[in-house]
Amino acid sequence: MDTAPPASPFLDEAAALLGPRGLTTDPELVGPWLTDWRGRYSGKACALASPADAAELSALVRLCVDHGVPIVPQGGNSGMSGGATPDASGTALLLSLRRMNAIRAIDGEARRVTCEAGVILQTLHEAAAAHDLRFPLTLGGKGSATVGGLISTNAGGSQVLRHGSMRALVLGLEAVLADGQIFSQLTPLKKDNRGFDLKQLLIGSEGTLGIVTAATLRLLPAVAERVVIWAGVSSLHAARALLLHCEGMEGEALEGFEVMPQASIDAVREHLPTARPPLAGRHPWHVLVEVVSDRSGAETLRERCETMMAAALEADLVENAAMSASDAQAEAFWLIRETVPAAERARGPAVQHDISVPVEAMPAFVETTAPMIEAEFPGTEAIAFGHLGDGNVHYHVIAPSVTDGPGWQARDGKAISRRVHDLVTEWGGSISAEHGIGQLKRDELARLGDPVALHMLRAVKRALDPAGLLNPGKLV
Amino acid sequence: MDTAPPASPFLDEAAALLGPRGLTTDPELVGPWLTDWRGRYSGKACALASPADAAELSALVRLCVDHGVPIVPQGGNSGMSGGATPDASGTALLLSLRRMNAIRAIDGEARRVTCEAGVILQTLHEAAAAHDLRFPLTLGGKGSATVGGLISTNAGGSQVLRHGSMRALVLGLEAVLADGQIFSQLTPLKKDNRGFDLKQLLIGSEGTLGIVTAATLRLLPAVAERVVIWAGVSSLHAARALLLHCEGMEGEALEGFEVMPQASIDAVREHLPTARPPLAGRHPWHVLVEVVSDRSGAETLRERCETMMAAALEADLVENAAMSASDAQAEAFWLIRETVPAAERARGPAVQHDISVPVEAMPAFVETTAPMIEAEFPGTEAIAFGHLGDGNVHYHVIAPSVTDGPGWQARDGKAISRRVHDLVTEWGGSISAEHGIGQLKRDELARLGDPVALHMLRAVKRALDPAGLLNPGKLV
Repeated sequence: MDTAPPASPFLDEAAALLGPRGLTTDPELVGPWLTDWRGRYSGKACALASPADAAELSALVRLCVDHGVPIVPQGGNSGMSGGATPDASGTALLLSLRRMNAIRAIDGEARRVTCEAGVILQTLHEAAAAHDLRFPLTLGGKGSATVGGLISTNAGGSQVLRHGSMRALVLGLEAVLADGQIFSQLTPLKKDNRGFDLKQLLIGSEGTLGIVTAATLRLLPAVAERVVIWAGVSSLHAARALLLHCEGMEGEALEGFEVMPQASIDAVREHLPTARPPLAGRHPWHVLVEVVSDRSGAETLRERCETMMAAALEADLVENAAMSASDAQAEAFWLIRETVPAAERARGPAVQHDISVPVEAMPAFVETTAPMIEAEFPGTEAIAFGHLGDGNVHYHVIAPSVTDGPGWQARDGKAISRRVHDLVTEWGGSISAEHGIGQLKRDELARLGDPVALHMLRAVKRALDPAGLLNPGKLV
Repeated sequence: MDTAPPASPFLDEAAALLGPRGLTTDPELVGPWLTDWRGRYSGKACALASPADAAELSALVRLCVDHGVPIVPQGGNSGMSGGATPDASGTALLLSLRRMNAIRAIDGEARRVTCEAGVILQTLHEAAAAHDLRFPLTLGGKGSATVGGLISTNAGGSQVLRHGSMRALVLGLEAVLADGQIFSQLTPLKKDNRGFDLKQLLIGSEGTLGIVTAATLRLLPAVAERVVIWAGVSSLHAARALLLHCEGMEGEALEGFEVMPQASIDAVREHLPTARPPLAGRHPWHVLVEVVSDRSGAETLRERCETMMAAALEADLVENAAMSASDAQAEAFWLIRETVPAAERARGPAVQHDISVPVEAMPAFVETTAPMIEAEFPGTEAIAFGHLGDGNVHYHVIAPSVTDGPGWQARDGKAISRRVHDLVTEWGGSISAEHGIGQLKRDELARLGDPVALHMLRAVKRALDPAGLLNPGKLV
């Protein structure tokens, strides 16, 4: 029996262009990439293309234009919003950037790296470390997330407080545009005022304006000293006061400021019995503060942190606090924070929201809206945790019963999300802080986005991708 | 005799909309704004409009659309590239943003300010200082440059090394678009991934995509301690080695790194006899290093700088060095640097270039190209000075004789500029580092710009200003 897929002039030409390593229609090879890692979205594709370089991709895109074939770019397939999953029609070409995974150059003196889109974040971290440098962005999916995906979604993480999101770390960019042209600005210029910043336009565009093929990224000196502080505080307002105190005393050494409610700590203890919370007592909110220094001064970072926390205790900003005494202990503190999402999921079905409001409004936002949600949807529990320093919390609403299933998600879950997004918008916030829009939030963006901004987004999209072949159905 | 200008339906409607304070055709009032401050460009306008707020401007832009009237936005009229001067046709409306000059709010805790486009930089500095904060961007024209103009041109200055150009300091933006819609994103969100960054698109677009009406800007704690170092070095390569040394030892405390050749110091002494260069001896190149700290640690900044410079002397990175002992002395050091442009101009006619190349390539670029220019254009002298830390030098080519006049500028000057721009492009640099394109470099951008980038610039321009009414003849 002939199991070859139905041929098409497009697939024939693409196969001739890319060769056997570059194109496949084998369901076993394509299948795993047709569903997002959280299993929320599934689609079909006419083939999986894996070009070897930007020139090949450029020719492939021209072929797609000729045949009217939509393109869905994909990096590590670890996005949170279904931005890399094709639709169900099967007309789209799934485009993997994973084969383009060379780290082209690391310049230790200029502190930068030029790498291709398919380089995995963890690999980038290791390459930087080998030069006594670091790339100051990390997140849970670092073992699969690729540089191209991180740029296309303007990924965040827990170090945004000090170093900004991906947008702030991209010094140069190479991308293939919707007509196959190669946009090449990999050489970083610290000052360049030749018109508006096209690089910034491509960052965070989720593959709808161009396909990122390579980037030059900023590196920093490796961390020389690091202290992680765990503090118990009486409220989110107190956490915000502690944030201002730490910013005032340590300024740019402050690299992370994460908050968790006591309920999340309880969930972590249940989920990971070996985890040992640094503070024995119970506190309404727990704060994890990361302070780092890239060089040791006369006064060590530890001494400065001790001074800082003594002042915080003196000023009644915290109920109690502990400080990591070693790197292993610092990791143990972080492990608790990093276990919160899994521990929360283990408590039962929940709808999750990646939202932001102005940093100073976050305590009042959570204190005001969590009881509202719990009252409007009886039996639910609203939990917020995450990056207080960025005004970005992960806002979970847990179902009334662990037995609530997909039916609850589809009915109540959807209603809850709409309500949360309404509230965020009322508070001047964003319905997507760091996970992007993808297909998950496209309708909500159309419903709640500023009409003027939407008009601009769509005008730019039409201008740069008039045929609408780049990642259709995502973002705009 | 009736001296009233010829009325037009547009002017009648605009006058009714804006009132007498908002619209004038009086040549005495309009005239001063029709020539750029350097006197290089002169134009005509049908009137000068000064709307009171964004709503009035929005209505005015709709009126311009109805009547097909082009708009030339203008802030302090202190731009370097003729970007705010209308053409000679007299059809354009000159739009002053200077009346919109309110500082709406300063939030000392969140360290940010929301102000209108017409606020003058110096005023912003003073307002920040009153809250024990600072706005970390300054430049020669601070007494006239406005926030709107600084944003529209993505202005730089001498603190870009640490704090970036205007682009990095804008947290929120309000602008009137080409169809009169108001784009309003003044509320800053530290994390917001709702599509590509439209704010970044407007920054540096020189009024061709929208008219900036207000912004929320980042503020920093006031400087607590400041040291200015003056060093004599043997070459630009040595200056670059010193830069790396200072970055390695003081990292984020390093705020400025300016280079000047001995010839520029001589010119300053001639031009400003009271100036006292910090080093008595002659050195091929002089370096000014600014180091600041926003808090005093156990070890003072001065002590750290002494350690840093002792190591630099030990490693033969500098020939000699002096350190400011007081704020007055720090200002005196800076005065010499700031006098260089005027002193260089006083030496005779010259063509000036605001260029950048990758930071690490700058020493070789200057050493290679200056002799080439001087050989190809006999009698000229090529001088470079400025922001070595940003890879951005001001590159002046001085005429063979002080009596060379406008004829030389038009003939040889133009040929020299083309040659310098060719060389910069060959070296992977930018023909506009911080002054923008305006009308001065529009043809050169079209000649030397990357065709793919130009295609994108033009596509976005057409998408957001299809009638081409916003600042026609500038940038794209």
